[in-house]
Amino acid sequence: MKKYEQIVEDIEAYIHDNELAQGTRLSSVESYAAHYQVSKSTIIKAMDILEKKGAIFQQRGSGVFVRRQRRKGYVSLLTNRGFTEELKDFAVTTQLLKLELMKPTEEVMLNLKLSGEDEVYYVERLRDIDGNRLCIEASYFPKKIVTYLNSEIAEGSIFNYLTEGLKLNISFADIYLHVDTLNEEQGEKLQLHAGAPALFVEQVVYLGTGEPFDYSKLTYHYQHSKFFVQAINF
Amino acid sequence: MKKYEQIVEDIEAYIHDNELAQGTRLSSVESYAAHYQVSKSTIIKAMDILEKKGAIFQQRGSGVFVRRQRRKGYVSLLTNRGFTEELKDFAVTTQLLKLELMKPTEEVMLNLKLSGEDEVYYVERLRDIDGNRLCIEASYFPKKIVTYLNSEIAEGSIFNYLTEGLKLNISFADIYLHVDTLNEEQGEKLQLHAGAPALFVEQVVYLGTGEPFDYSKLTYHYQHSKFFVQAINF
Repeated sequence: MKKYEQIVEDIEAYIHDNELAQGTRLSSVESYAAHYQVSKSTIIKAMDILEKKGAIFQQRGSGVFVRRQRRKGYVSLLTNRGFTEELKDFAVTTQLLKLELMKPTEEVMLNLKLSGEDEVYYVERLRDIDGNRLCIEASYFPKKIVTYLNSEIAEGSIFNYLTEGLKLNISFADIYLHVDTLNEEQGEKLQLHAGAPALFVEQVVYLGTGEPFDYSKLTYHYQHSKFFVQAINF
Repeated sequence: MKKYEQIVEDIEAYIHDNELAQGTRLSSVESYAAHYQVSKSTIIKAMDILEKKGAIFQQRGSGVFVRRQRRKGYVSLLTNRGFTEELKDFAVTTQLLKLELMKPTEEVMLNLKLSGEDEVYYVERLRDIDGNRLCIEASYFPKKIVTYLNSEIAEGSIFNYLTEGLKLNISFADIYLHVDTLNEEQGEKLQLHAGAPALFVEQVVYLGTGEPFDYSKLTYHYQHSKFFVQAINF
């Protein structure tokens, strides 16, 4: 872990552990630099990351302030720590429905920028939160990037495997949402009836190089899911 | 408009007008600095804003690349240019249902950090897109910040009035989403039946100083709305 990453984690933990209220002023860049014995530019870099994560806001000339003001139990749309990490105060469990290596469909090729020569891992899972069905998750991973997957991995945190096992540098994501009603099969998987409302999320996740490596479709149980987005530069 | 803001607009327009594909490499910081006759730090600042806006991504050591890859007709959850700006390829119209100065409820006080002494403008509007009902929008603005509102303003773009008339520095927002069914009254306003699915959005928008100035509840017609989010630091 690089020095600025450690500082980002430290400051996040400090805000969290001390339950600092929105608007609380943090120490100056200078005093953080002295404390960590690093250059001001290292602190400025850490602050920029904290701002992008929605943990702080910076007011030119007047300082750095705590932002994070999350409502409990809301899932962030803007991060993919995976539910395992994101909802760590809750018991999130996973049921693997399907894992197979296949040829991509047109839609998958388009979203993952693949050709007909490529192969993808298809993973379908059900996620529960505190014993309640949270969502159906159907994901496609190109084999040329996600070189190996098995059911043991897919039953746990794929996110951890990708970042720690395969050392992928997960960077940004395009997320599309709409609301509609469930069909018969979706209703059954979510323990709801056909015609019940649901949030349908499609996401394409990219490496730092700009290559897409994960195209996922998530279908959420409307009674067991609430979402949170922190917008910067609104 | 400051120099770096002009550069941000220029580069966005360049990407848009030339329909540059995702992953297209842009010129180097040095060559932009030479072109605009500004310092490298001004260009770096412009690039950081473009990254936050999801228009580009930066890859350390290897350059700056085009990101923007929006699906047409999707509303961004992360910006509040107002629909007027955001959906400019579409005809967005507004019908003002209510405008009044009132005492805030507990919920409004909590979200806008007000006391019982304060007053808020309450604005309720219906928005249509290409002749189809898009959403019901109910907004609360604290009078001490949004000092004046009338129906002429509320029938147009409140966003433009706040930024250009009142010169407010709109900065960041907390957005909460969930899916549920419509009640009788909501169904009527959205030209749907009670029990139809809908996306319910609550947002608190902040000034650069961290003061909340807009608490809005939006209820979207599920057939006429689709949303887009660009996540950085996923």
